[in-house]
Amino acid sequence: MTRNPLLETLRAFMTERDWGQFHSPENLAKSIAIEAGELLECYQWNADVDRDEVADELADVLTYALLLADKLNLDPEQIIRAKLERTGQKYPVEKAKGRSTKYDRL
Amino acid sequence: MTRNPLLETLRAFMTERDWGQFHSPENLAKSIAIEAGELLECYQWNADVDRDEVADELADVLTYALLLADKLNLDPEQIIRAKLERTGQKYPVEKAKGRSTKYDRL
Amino acid sequence: MTRNPLLETLRAFMTERDWGQFHSPENLAKSIAIEAGELLECYQWNADVDRDEVADELADVLTYALLLADKLNLDPEQIIRAKLERTGQKYPVEKAKGRSTKYDRL
Amino acid sequence: MTRNPLLETLRAFMTERDWGQFHSPENLAKSIAIEAGELLECYQWNADVDRDEVADELADVLTYALLLADKLNLDPEQIIRAKLERTGQKYPVEKAKGRSTKYDRL
Repeated sequence: MTRNPLLETLRAFMTERDWGQFHSPENLAKSIAIEAGELLECYQWNADVDRDEVADELADVLTYALLLADKLNLDPEQIIRAKLERTGQKYPVEKAKGRSTKYDRL
Repeated sequence: MTRNPLLETLRAFMTERDWGQFHSPENLAKSIAIEAGELLECYQWNADVDRDEVADELADVLTYALLLADKLNLDPEQIIRAKLERTGQKYPVEKAKGRSTKYDRL
Repeated sequence: MTRNPLLETLRAFMTERDWGQFHSPENLAKSIAIEAGELLECYQWNADVDRDEVADELADVLTYALLLADKLNLDPEQIIRAKLERTGQKYPVEKAKGRSTKYDRL
Repeated sequence: MTRNPLLETLRAFMTERDWGQFHSPENLAKSIAIEAGELLECYQWNADVDRDEVADELADVLTYALLLADKLNLDPEQIIRAKLERTGQKYPVEKAKGRSTKYDRL
């Protein structure tokens, strides 16, 4: 993993506040689910949302997701690419094109 | 926003499958919450998890989060940094250090 | 389904406010996930929670769950019992006793 | 709380499998969020769902919600009614009728 200035900023922020003690992988996984719920709340009753609010909640999801990756020594870009490859195998273009069907029903 | 090879890979993957039509911001917000639930399932009964499974589910959360950011023309790094600054104001080091208390009760 | 005073109270509350128009099954499913996130927030950093807060968020989950059941003409007690029977088949006592392992790994 | 046959069935099911040890309030709160995500998955890409699948996932949400209430000695009907009263105060009919606006913006 090359130098990652964003991650270094996140780490410094947490260290400064001594918050690492709360950031067990399990607590981070809970936090991601909690923030994902707040993000979803922007779309609860209609799709006509306040973009700033969405940005705010999406930032929380991303922050906790990056902290969890960091805690587990996972490189975010690497796991995204690895998963994309597996998804590509489960959803080959010729079968999945234009369809939202789950792979086990394709 | 500078060139972002990961984002370009994600976009190409979706375009190839013509999946953009399903990726309304609302559907992406739902997808983030769904994947956050699957990630949390790794920690449902105990904290003794399979790291590969966590990586897999975390990758799904990150992928949909990046797709939502892209759809709304939000730069992930920029919104994370902006939110971190607001969080820093709500949780100044001298008050928040070593405490997990919510800002409105600090 | 026999007379259900609680359900009748919920329906009257919604009708009085003309909120039925917002309560599509999909919106109710989103609402359940949103409230489940707020409930989980009570347990975000530790297990030492305020019981009144939990009661409040749990009530929201239950309310939307009952509204969704009602919208789909599902009897809550009946679907709980039917699911319990299926769960009992997937987790027979002699294999599942004292174990939190998922059925496909038992 | 009067006799509740459904709750007694749920308790017997769990006792028989010695699963009470896994059902800390925190684990039940996580379980509700996980099942809420699976319920939401029924509505991920469109609103055209399989009613049996919805019933199945909704039953899981309800089951864990009832188990959490039971663990905390909360009467489900009572907390739903208490919350409804508070909601009624935050959303008086004359202000809230026909609107999905959050109370702090009404």
